[in-house]
Amino acid sequence: MTTTLLAAAVLSLAEILQASPAGDWRALDPEDTLYLELPSGRVVIELASGYAPKAAAAVRTLVREGYFDGAAIIRSQDNYVVQWARAEDDPRAKAMAAKTLAPEFSRPIDAKLPFTKLAYPDTYAPEVGFSAGFPVARDPRKKQTWLVHCYGSVGVGRDNAADSGNGTELYAVIGQSPRNLDRNITLVGRVVQGIEKFSVLPRGPGPMGFYEKPSEWTPIRGAKLAADVPATERLALEALKTESATFKTVVESRANRKETWFHDPVGRIGVCNVPLPVRVRAP
Amino acid sequence: MTTTLLAAAVLSLAEILQASPAGDWRALDPEDTLYLELPSGRVVIELASGYAPKAAAAVRTLVREGYFDGAAIIRSQDNYVVQWARAEDDPRAKAMAAKTLAPEFSRPIDAKLPFTKLAYPDTYAPEVGFSAGFPVARDPRKKQTWLVHCYGSVGVGRDNAADSGNGTELYAVIGQSPRNLDRNITLVGRVVQGIEKFSVLPRGPGPMGFYEKPSEWTPIRGAKLAADVPATERLALEALKTESATFKTVVESRANRKETWFHDPVGRIGVCNVPLPVRVRAP
Repeated sequence: MTTTLLAAAVLSLAEILQASPAGDWRALDPEDTLYLELPSGRVVIELASGYAPKAAAAVRTLVREGYFDGAAIIRSQDNYVVQWARAEDDPRAKAMAAKTLAPEFSRPIDAKLPFTKLAYPDTYAPEVGFSAGFPVARDPRKKQTWLVHCYGSVGVGRDNAADSGNGTELYAVIGQSPRNLDRNITLVGRVVQGIEKFSVLPRGPGPMGFYEKPSEWTPIRGAKLAADVPATERLALEALKTESATFKTVVESRANRKETWFHDPVGRIGVCNVPLPVRVRAP
Repeated sequence: MTTTLLAAAVLSLAEILQASPAGDWRALDPEDTLYLELPSGRVVIELASGYAPKAAAAVRTLVREGYFDGAAIIRSQDNYVVQWARAEDDPRAKAMAAKTLAPEFSRPIDAKLPFTKLAYPDTYAPEVGFSAGFPVARDPRKKQTWLVHCYGSVGVGRDNAADSGNGTELYAVIGQSPRNLDRNITLVGRVVQGIEKFSVLPRGPGPMGFYEKPSEWTPIRGAKLAADVPATERLALEALKTESATFKTVVESRANRKETWFHDPVGRIGVCNVPLPVRVRAP
């Protein structure tokens, strides 16, 4: 008698997504979509213009100036981050070294930034949830919100000064969410496709996972915004709206595991454990 | 005037460990130390005999019978786990397929299992902390304790039946802590050295990260307990006691970041973000 309900309860993630209405998905904005070409293939990053407008603009400008063509992955620290930049002694890197950019570690809670709250406690923040496709946190008392560091998050490397992160060195998280970095550094987006191309790179043997010689670097063969690629050559990626009913179902199904395999349905989930589905749009 | 205090406050992890008394460290028990030889080098696993005595004993027996010599890594799922076993159609695998083992998903809180509680909230459990070198959780109401899934945790793969995990298929976590597995599967230890040899492996192209053909597998060239290796050939590894004063300092210094780089000292840390130091004992 409860066959349908039961079936609904044990839908897999793939089945939930397959059953979702087209309106629960959004095409990635080509101005916010960055393609990095590695020897192993393409990594796609979505820029979080709503949370880090200055950093996203800086990255966009650098990409359009060809700054990352000829950059390389210079660091891979196990269970932490990969990082890419031009060589320190490269003339363009030197020319940019002293350039500052206002930090965007957090920002005021704003009605224009949607928020789908996660019902479960978090170690690091009073509230966590999702906003326009990104994992975020909030402090209602301080009226602040910020992107949080999860697997695949992309940030703007900096030196000690808060404004020293100008977008010329970027990193992506390849391990356990380093949430202690939240509100200490500007996050500018997340990898939406190809993160494994970063995470399988040999770890750097030097301190903090830096490679010791340029021969160990992985070259970035090109970096382009989707907006600057002919429409026919763009990847037709779409992301599940984190404000949609389908996403709510995804969160519930991942927090309350009904599959036969689970003996304890768990009943909760962490902000960095919720999948943020991105797929190729059906032609 | 507060130079010393200030210096103490900004000691790096390496400096804290360097200043630690020898008594705050314990040699790994050779009966609980498993060496897995991959083509890229050695992975060292510490078995958690206090939390999973039956699973640890089963693994020990399998290792001594040579079961894992000639096994292979058959799965690498990005941001999740690697898994190793003998081929499904291997006669020894077939002979073991139906063998059951009582699950050890959690166990009664026991005075013999030490507990250093972490002061910060956790998404998944009423209490989290550390016990004899492992990250653990507790439910005081249910009087239960269990090992938790962090980066590097090693568990006993199973099918749907709780007792189907007999130790012949093991996995290690190579991504964001999959804490939803806690209390659903038996954890039997953690990787204490060489986890990056697992985490850089190419991801499997099949469903759930399984490789599609044996040619994609990474062979395990040998598996031995340290106890079965001549003492002179053992790695002289020692682990910081998670019940020690030095470990308390480590937790505090990682939760309250005083380094110049940190603009917000954070003031908290998650159970899977605390380093569990293991080093080569000074000769």
